[in-house]
Amino acid sequence: MLCAAIGLIFAFFLIAIVLRAPAGNERMRQISAAVQEGAKAYLNRQVVTISAIAAIIFILLFIFKDHLTAIGFIVGAFCSLSAGFIGMRVAVIANVRTTQAASVARTNALRMAFNGGAVTGLLVVGLALLAVSIFYTAANKMVGHDMAIRSLVGLALGASLISVFARLGGGIYTKAADVGADLVGKIEQGFEEDDPRNPATIADNVGDNVGDCAGMAADVFETYAVSLIGAILVGALTLVGNPAVIIYPFVLGGISVLGAICGVLFVNVATGKPAAVLMGGVLTSAIISAILFWPATHYLFPTGLTIAGATRTPTQLYFASVIGLVMTAVVVAITNYYTSMRYAPVQKIARASETGHATNIIAGLAVGQHATALPVGFIGIAILLSFHFAGLYGIAIAVMSMLSLAGIIISLDSFGPITDNAGGIAVMSNLPKEIRAVTDELDAVGNTMKAVTKGYAIASAGLAALVLFGSYVEELKAHVMRNGEPFVFQFSLNEPKVIIGLFLGGLLPFIFTAFSMDAVGKAAGAVVREVRRQLKAKPGILTGQDTPEYGTCVDIVTKAALREMIVPALLPLIFVVAVATIKPLGPVVLGGLLVGTIVTGLFVAIAMTSGGGAWDNAKKFIEEGNLGGKGSFAHAASITGDTVGDPYKDTAGPAINPMIKVVNIVAILIIPIFF
Amino acid sequence: MLCAAIGLIFAFFLIAIVLRAPAGNERMRQISAAVQEGAKAYLNRQVVTISAIAAIIFILLFIFKDHLTAIGFIVGAFCSLSAGFIGMRVAVIANVRTTQAASVARTNALRMAFNGGAVTGLLVVGLALLAVSIFYTAANKMVGHDMAIRSLVGLALGASLISVFARLGGGIYTKAADVGADLVGKIEQGFEEDDPRNPATIADNVGDNVGDCAGMAADVFETYAVSLIGAILVGALTLVGNPAVIIYPFVLGGISVLGAICGVLFVNVATGKPAAVLMGGVLTSAIISAILFWPATHYLFPTGLTIAGATRTPTQLYFASVIGLVMTAVVVAITNYYTSMRYAPVQKIARASETGHATNIIAGLAVGQHATALPVGFIGIAILLSFHFAGLYGIAIAVMSMLSLAGIIISLDSFGPITDNAGGIAVMSNLPKEIRAVTDELDAVGNTMKAVTKGYAIASAGLAALVLFGSYVEELKAHVMRNGEPFVFQFSLNEPKVIIGLFLGGLLPFIFTAFSMDAVGKAAGAVVREVRRQLKAKPGILTGQDTPEYGTCVDIVTKAALREMIVPALLPLIFVVAVATIKPLGPVVLGGLLVGTIVTGLFVAIAMTSGGGAWDNAKKFIEEGNLGGKGSFAHAASITGDTVGDPYKDTAGPAINPMIKVVNIVAILIIPIFF
Repeated sequence: MLCAAIGLIFAFFLIAIVLRAPAGNERMRQISAAVQEGAKAYLNRQVVTISAIAAIIFILLFIFKDHLTAIGFIVGAFCSLSAGFIGMRVAVIANVRTTQAASVARTNALRMAFNGGAVTGLLVVGLALLAVSIFYTAANKMVGHDMAIRSLVGLALGASLISVFARLGGGIYTKAADVGADLVGKIEQGFEEDDPRNPATIADNVGDNVGDCAGMAADVFETYAVSLIGAILVGALTLVGNPAVIIYPFVLGGISVLGAICGVLFVNVATGKPAAVLMGGVLTSAIISAILFWPATHYLFPTGLTIAGATRTPTQLYFASVIGLVMTAVVVAITNYYTSMRYAPVQKIARASETGHATNIIAGLAVGQHATALPVGFIGIAILLSFHFAGLYGIAIAVMSMLSLAGIIISLDSFGPITDNAGGIAVMSNLPKEIRAVTDELDAVGNTMKAVTKGYAIASAGLAALVLFGSYVEELKAHVMRNGEPFVFQFSLNEPKVIIGLFLGGLLPFIFTAFSMDAVGKAAGAVVREVRRQLKAKPGILTGQDTPEYGTCVDIVTKAALREMIVPALLPLIFVVAVATIKPLGPVVLGGLLVGTIVTGLFVAIAMTSGGGAWDNAKKFIEEGNLGGKGSFAHAASITGDTVGDPYKDTAGPAINPMIKVVNIVAILIIPIFF
Repeated sequence: MLCAAIGLIFAFFLIAIVLRAPAGNERMRQISAAVQEGAKAYLNRQVVTISAIAAIIFILLFIFKDHLTAIGFIVGAFCSLSAGFIGMRVAVIANVRTTQAASVARTNALRMAFNGGAVTGLLVVGLALLAVSIFYTAANKMVGHDMAIRSLVGLALGASLISVFARLGGGIYTKAADVGADLVGKIEQGFEEDDPRNPATIADNVGDNVGDCAGMAADVFETYAVSLIGAILVGALTLVGNPAVIIYPFVLGGISVLGAICGVLFVNVATGKPAAVLMGGVLTSAIISAILFWPATHYLFPTGLTIAGATRTPTQLYFASVIGLVMTAVVVAITNYYTSMRYAPVQKIARASETGHATNIIAGLAVGQHATALPVGFIGIAILLSFHFAGLYGIAIAVMSMLSLAGIIISLDSFGPITDNAGGIAVMSNLPKEIRAVTDELDAVGNTMKAVTKGYAIASAGLAALVLFGSYVEELKAHVMRNGEPFVFQFSLNEPKVIIGLFLGGLLPFIFTAFSMDAVGKAAGAVVREVRRQLKAKPGILTGQDTPEYGTCVDIVTKAALREMIVPALLPLIFVVAVATIKPLGPVVLGGLLVGTIVTGLFVAIAMTSGGGAWDNAKKFIEEGNLGGKGSFAHAASITGDTVGDPYKDTAGPAINPMIKVVNIVAILIIPIFF
């Protein structure tokens, strides 16, 4: 709690710095205000929709589970929504100031955008640590240890479910606006990005904030809280009676807040290439954490820990925690390779654009799929090693230490949308081209950072979900034994029910993403039709004599996003409950389903987020003047790839991350209800 | 054997009918001969390349396994290659005669194309039945029952491995030529399909024969032989001492040859809409089989069969066999819905084309993913039911009865490339437009049929692979017990090694298809450059004054296909051997790998083949005059979708089918070598 408090104080200190910076001229502030207004309006309506669904689930939990779990659910849901609000609020404050800073120097703009992101990062991590620790401490006092642990699952569900909605709603919003704006604006009319004549341009900029900032913040809050709760759960279920195993994940999280603060300081001091400075910040953060984990582990487990009959030394536990830090570095490096324009994969897509739209798409799809190999290989190694050091608890520790870096990683992720918006404000305010050049350069770095953090999020989600699956089995065992029955369930691959479960679970990411992409396609089509209508009704827009009605596009995507997010977001819930209740299926099929979702979810998510990032930067590579540059045939093809990549990397792909966890958490929750 | 012989005799009778039909005018025969020559030249070179690899594997098997397995491998490989040759030879005879028949009446063209396909179907099925039964009978006499069964795995490996090469080589060839021809011809120059001015047009038509006909025939031979061998293996390993369990799969296969003949007769008699007539043929075939299975089952198992301690009645076994027939109908109906232009999914893609290339791609990707849901759901039901009726043997029987319909199903599959080629010959011979209209209509039906049969192939492959996985576990058990050790291996999802195996196996289809698509992209790029070069060097080609050099394009794709197929085809082999030999991995990880490959392979393959078919027919839907018709903006976008779909549905997607089985068969084969 102390570390969380320090993190929050530092975040407020950063806010003060950001707010003190100049917010630019009148026109810039007007545009920023319009974006801010649209984002606030959308988030408010999203809160209303989500609250209605949350209320129903709260009532169901209140009736069919215990009251504390239901309260945990509300706490998790509330914090997840708050994280989203924080992310959006800070971003809209930072974007205009980044534009202003870009007019001074690149370093200033870099720091401004990064500090804006860092505020979100520290607030979200601090919030998650505080929420879980306060809720656990209070519940422990009220109902005792066992029930307190179980009701934490409610908190996890609240966080995950809301985060699925936020990711989907925000993701559909941002990409429908973006794709719609690009299809008519860039391809039909030849507008530049963020051209004020484009009626969808404000909606596009609002989207960056509600999707990439608010959605992402809710998502990371969820990932952090669930990894923490997963580690506590595994500790409590498999290593009964040792309070240190529950304290350890909190300590790892707390230490890393200090690490993240050091990382933020590094970025604010260092100079050099933007990508190098940002990576330096992450490295600083990881090294500080790695150093502090050592005494903490030895202090908590002076004589080690007995797991599955064998004693593990404190050094072995320490190794498990370091694996999480190393995995972060590995995943970041791999995703960077596949999505940065400096390396072969992105350049291959760019070259494929020279022969047309179709070869660009084929190359991009192939790159996305190739990009799954190394992360999955390293996840396998991480599982093998951390299990070797400390069993399932070791995997849980590795995940928690991986997530402990979230504070600094989010700072990178927010970087992208903030610079993207800063560029938009520059263009719309008719600022000199040099400012746009600075924000464009930072935006390309931001694209890679966004892909990198998504790779990180999904890799950690895969591991966290495995921990949750372990908890599912343990909880099922505990439940059966509480009822005085023998535990007969087998999760062997020889069992047809397990195979059926794997198939059903494997299906979930495929149709979940299919629905999400459909949603973007549908909403984007509506935007295209509206923009075409406006340009036809008011031809003066093209010449700059008429002002477009930005509000109608904002309104269309707002409604579409809220409508279209419902089905895919409820899909995992329905799937799990159906498998649990339909007669010949049941607990064994459900176990297979959980693992099946993790397996295909991991691949689909990595392929989508990496492929999408690579497409985006292939376009940027061509726009830098390579292979014919802007306006060439290759450029047109690369825009198609970028547009296909949009829902891949910003809607469907990242939403898989909370979805996998919803599936696993719901399964744990319903054990006592249906089995 | 008798039924197989009847099937072969009927096939020769059909060949006589096809050969007797008129082969058109001089120009038509010239073009047909050019296509035939290119196809023969490619297949000959493919045989040389594959033979070299087969020779190495033969030697390895000869040294590290027994001689009979090595001989089985050669038999399987030889038959698989022969099946490819048969498919190609018959198709090039039937295509020009279909063009000629189209000038008389639609029904004549339909029957000619179908009969050409039926020859391939009956020959392939007859060959597979004969090869397996003769090899088994001979081996049984020479080395006894146990060894004979084991050496059948060698035959399965030969069939599968060669089929991976044939599918990939042919698939890369056909789609590189197709994509290359389309990208320059249609999009840059505005040529019609098969315009003789396009230098890549002969290569494109050759590709239809070596990919869609030869590759497909090898693939179906493999699927049939492996399903048969899988059923025998499960019967021999789990139900020791009952010869009827080994005879039963043969009997099901034999009966269905008779069913297939009835189906062929039906198509040659019935009149009506092409799709309805073809479906009528399949239905006839299935009903005849279902009727004859009843007495056969009761004759072979008069008192039923004891499986896992419980007695199953002959009626229960019969039900297991009927499940396979029903599954075929279900998969055919579902795939038809997702890929036929009469239904919502294809029309959704067509409408998405109105807003651009990118929305067409997004819609197509989403349709492909949606199309996985129902087949996988029904596969789950089929597993549950057939296992309920007769355990693992029940699943094996269901697969075999599903595959027994291969004779008639291939006739549908060959239909597409034959009509496609017939249309090409019509255009290149400057025949009247009405003929092209007939072949175009049949081609659209052919697209759906091709997608349908691919859905069938992959669904059966998923089930067959599960049977092989069961055999892997049984064989591992038998091996460990032969060595006098206790069987300690656990394939439970709680075991991290199983999870790692699932991840590694799940990875395989993703990188396998990534490599395959890269291969097509690369080879197509080479064709594009060559066509551009020719059109620049000889501007007279565009006006019809110069004749293009068709040979150089044929040569480029031939070399590219042979070069690019090697890496992806050897990938599954390398993966399995690596997992088996690298130290901390081993048999348990390998077991997880087998299942992981099945799970993701099934989804990726269905998504690719259905998505590809839907894209193709969305284009045809627009070309029929909907949404602006040919030359509209929507049409351009739909061509992009079709081109992306090409490697999806004809290279990467269908090659997953034999690849899944290679993985499982190699795993069974290497048990005594490495464990």
